Amino acid sequence: MKYIAIDIGGTQLRAAVYPEEGLEPVNSRSIPTHQGNEKPEIRLLELIESVWPKDDGIRCIAAGVAGPVDPRTGIVYNAPNICGWTDFPLGSIISHKFKTETRIGNDANLAGLGEWKYGAGVGHHDLIYLTISTGIGGGIIIDDKMLVGPHGIAAEIGHITVWPGGPMCGCGKRGHLEAVSSGTGIANFVKQQIANGVESALADISETITAREVTRAAQHGDALALEAFDQAGRFLGQAIADLLLIFEPTIVVLGGGVTKAGDLLMNPMQKALKEGVFTPEYLKHLEIAIAKLGDQVGLVGALTLARS
Amino acid sequence: MKYIAIDIGGTQLRAAVYPEEGLEPVNSRSIPTHQGNEKPEIRLLELIESVWPKDDGIRCIAAGVAGPVDPRTGIVYNAPNICGWTDFPLGSIISHKFKTETRIGNDANLAGLGEWKYGAGVGHHDLIYLTISTGIGGGIIIDDKMLVGPHGIAAEIGHITVWPGGPMCGCGKRGHLEAVSSGTGIANFVKQQIANGVESALADISETITAREVTRAAQHGDALALEAFDQAGRFLGQAIADLLLIFEPTIVVLGGGVTKAGDLLMNPMQKALKEGVFTPEYLKHLEIAIAKLGDQVGLVGALTLARS
Repeated sequence: MKYIAIDIGGTQLRAAVYPEEGLEPVNSRSIPTHQGNEKPEIRLLELIESVWPKDDGIRCIAAGVAGPVDPRTGIVYNAPNICGWTDFPLGSIISHKFKTETRIGNDANLAGLGEWKYGAGVGHHDLIYLTISTGIGGGIIIDDKMLVGPHGIAAEIGHITVWPGGPMCGCGKRGHLEAVSSGTGIANFVKQQIANGVESALADISETITAREVTRAAQHGDALALEAFDQAGRFLGQAIADLLLIFEPTIVVLGGGVTKAGDLLMNPMQKALKEGVFTPEYLKHLEIAIAKLGDQVGLVGALTLARS
Repeated sequence: MKYIAIDIGGTQLRAAVYPEEGLEPVNSRSIPTHQGNEKPEIRLLELIESVWPKDDGIRCIAAGVAGPVDPRTGIVYNAPNICGWTDFPLGSIISHKFKTETRIGNDANLAGLGEWKYGAGVGHHDLIYLTISTGIGGGIIIDDKMLVGPHGIAAEIGHITVWPGGPMCGCGKRGHLEAVSSGTGIANFVKQQIANGVESALADISETITAREVTRAAQHGDALALEAFDQAGRFLGQAIADLLLIFEPTIVVLGGGVTKAGDLLMNPMQKALKEGVFTPEYLKHLEIAIAKLGDQVGLVGALTLARS
């Protein structure tokens, strides 16, 4: 018997067929999520059909979705980047079509699950995963179990308040971790400071700045870019310190493109982490690790859910 | 068979013998924790002996301690109000003496457990408990299980940072929930403002102010006292909003003396809570409740652990 893992993003739909063990797919395929007037769910069902093994059965299908979902009912509450998916019964649409057990999860939650089972967190029982990208998402493993909450919306770490009255978050509220420490938050800070008249090598491209440009400028010593990472790292460390007190994980795994900034982000994060915990006990058994699964994390996270 | 529950505080040691079911002890006794040069652990063992039933066996002894403990090893890391208890093997001392299974827990964790099983949280599977007193402690139930962390120091909600650079906490760090929203935090704010020259009916007793006096002054319309509760309530609401995003509990139970201030604390808390969550989904299934077990919570929490 085999497993099908699906990674549903706003740009691409990816599906892969996996054997009973290991991370080597026997078949995989990606297609754009949107094309013409075709509904994404129709494209998804066709994608699954196209990878379905001719010579074997499927024990379970699991899909990770960029947006909040209810794993118990298989409903996608709201996938902002997928056309028409609001209170959308994704789980039952797939299971009805293929007559196969289907599980649904939030992509960041599943990325945490994948890193715990097959990535940087192997051997740990209590793990916090943070993906720091254009937004910030989280996955939490407690005592070898994924935390999802009774309706599936727990572990939304990106929206905890780290700076009351601080910068505006994509969600419309102020001072969330995502508003400060995500790629968007880092870029917005630089843009704002340039608009305020602060000098920077980035001033010429102010409108189109992303965290990637800020990283490059910081690596060349630009003071504003360095300040942006210092601030992002400090608040990230503060948030992680809070999560240590709450969960006492033995590992924090950091994924997402912004972690490629390396020490620019990690040094202020580590400093704030040490300052933030009220007793060093929390750091005694703690490992901080960079995610290992790279761009396979979406599929491997879904695979972990399918096999669990 | 019966159970012995023990509540270990800096002032009193309490022990009670309970039957298989119900919350009515068949015997109970309290003594001062410290007296003369006698070690608190010797007093505790004598207390347990004095309530031990003559006509029945004890299935389990459980003790709640005011301080961080490791429930897996029965070691009290550090009980700041109990003389000599640092890395103290309380669990094995009791179990060795009485040849009976013994369990140890942090008092706030156990209070949450007790409220979940026998108090305001009955019927809920996901609960956050906060005790707001001179300090702030927490208890967390996820999917009917108490969160303690791999070494027992999870759920230290009082020390999450709600106000970076804010007032000094008892632990020596700044801006923790306890520094702002505990009774001590409320009194310290009023004292500080009076020292800064702010007018208040409390100015005459500035040195000896506690949250109780601030409550009374606020009830009489004192502007500074009202501001103190407004601030404490707002940051409490912000912290609870964060806990909702992280855990998605269906109930938040608030205990401790400061909750007696009622709406003075609850109104700004509720307001900040509504403003703090990034989607109202988190409030849809949420109940906010005042703790029900009163001053029995310590014993009932330990009893719940003993029976679990």
